[in-house]
Amino acid sequence: MLRLYDNITSGNGYKCRWLLTQLDMPFERVEVDIDKAESRTPAFLAINPNGRIPLLRLCPGDYLAESNAILRWIAEGTSFWPDNRRDKAAVLQWLFWEQYNHEPNIATARFWITHKVPMTPERVHALVLKREAGHAALKLMDDHLRHRDWLVGQHCTIADIALYAYTHVADEGGFDLGGYPAVCRWIDRFAQQPNHILITDRVGTDVPYDPATLA
Amino acid sequence: MLRLYDNITSGNGYKCRWLLTQLDMPFERVEVDIDKAESRTPAFLAINPNGRIPLLRLCPGDYLAESNAILRWIAEGTSFWPDNRRDKAAVLQWLFWEQYNHEPNIATARFWITHKVPMTPERVHALVLKREAGHAALKLMDDHLRHRDWLVGQHCTIADIALYAYTHVADEGGFDLGGYPAVCRWIDRFAQQPNHILITDRVGTDVPYDPATLA
Repeated sequence: MLRLYDNITSGNGYKCRWLLTQLDMPFERVEVDIDKAESRTPAFLAINPNGRIPLLRLCPGDYLAESNAILRWIAEGTSFWPDNRRDKAAVLQWLFWEQYNHEPNIATARFWITHKVPMTPERVHALVLKREAGHAALKLMDDHLRHRDWLVGQHCTIADIALYAYTHVADEGGFDLGGYPAVCRWIDRFAQQPNHILITDRVGTDVPYDPATLA
Repeated sequence: MLRLYDNITSGNGYKCRWLLTQLDMPFERVEVDIDKAESRTPAFLAINPNGRIPLLRLCPGDYLAESNAILRWIAEGTSFWPDNRRDKAAVLQWLFWEQYNHEPNIATARFWITHKVPMTPERVHALVLKREAGHAALKLMDDHLRHRDWLVGQHCTIADIALYAYTHVADEGGFDLGGYPAVCRWIDRFAQQPNHILITDRVGTDVPYDPATLA
């Protein structure tokens, strides 16, 4: 059975949880306490040298990292991955944009605030820049969604899943979504899908974190 | 004909130039002066709202952004994109890792230094963090390449192209590659491929930048 190394506060983990649930794919879920650096232990680094969650165990000894690569793998053969070359390219464009322009600003701001990371003078300054870049990202999405229901094509794809994860909780990072009406309508639309789960829902079969049996 | 909006100093642009040349695909190349903010003009923002190069015009009016999404599009049906699901997932994992863990550290440090960006106290501090994270990325690559010729599978894929772009010029960002022997061997191996071009090679058919006819 698939096993997801995850953290319940992570939007990147939520992307994977959401799609697995949506597709009724059974999976085990291991809660990794990132505040206790459980993803940076020697045992964890042996299965993901990058020391991050989410991490999907495809089978014992075989791991896939990077939330958007995991999304793409799960979506194979489903309606969440387009069936034509041009739309596939557009979805990948959004996925790379999310990891470069959206997540490092909106998700990192949320992480610093909600995980109570010490706000050094450098972080205070960095937060100003993240606020600016994060709002630019939200504006780009709002412009794009003004006359569209979904980011690519006529229905929900993994581009929407990847962007929904941190956009719908952007307020927890100090981003007011009030100025982005098209984004707000898209958030409502997304949440109306059958089998929708919340970022706080602990889905999957619970498997305890055990460094001795990580692999 | 394909048209690449590019900047000759950009490793992200080089990825696309390199693969198009490797595959003998004819293309036009428009040099965009990013130091003069030519990618942030209203005319350019109309074709890429994210205001960045590289940007590939697939046909008039149809544009693809994000260097790694462009790489993936170009590589369709070639040996640079694996033919099995597991290796495809591994390649995408590296591409997302490159944009999140490698490029923002190694490429941005190089950009600040080579483009003579004013080094404010905040940038001086940020550079220290980028140096640390960049070396962690290089170490991860070195460990992975110790017993392998290529990042994924038995031959060069777009994962290698994406990582080569900024790794082989990391010294221009102040990163000494001396401590990464496996990376150095991989860099030599990469450059021995037929049709290899340098990051400074102005390939493709030169088309002048003209805001009036960008589309």
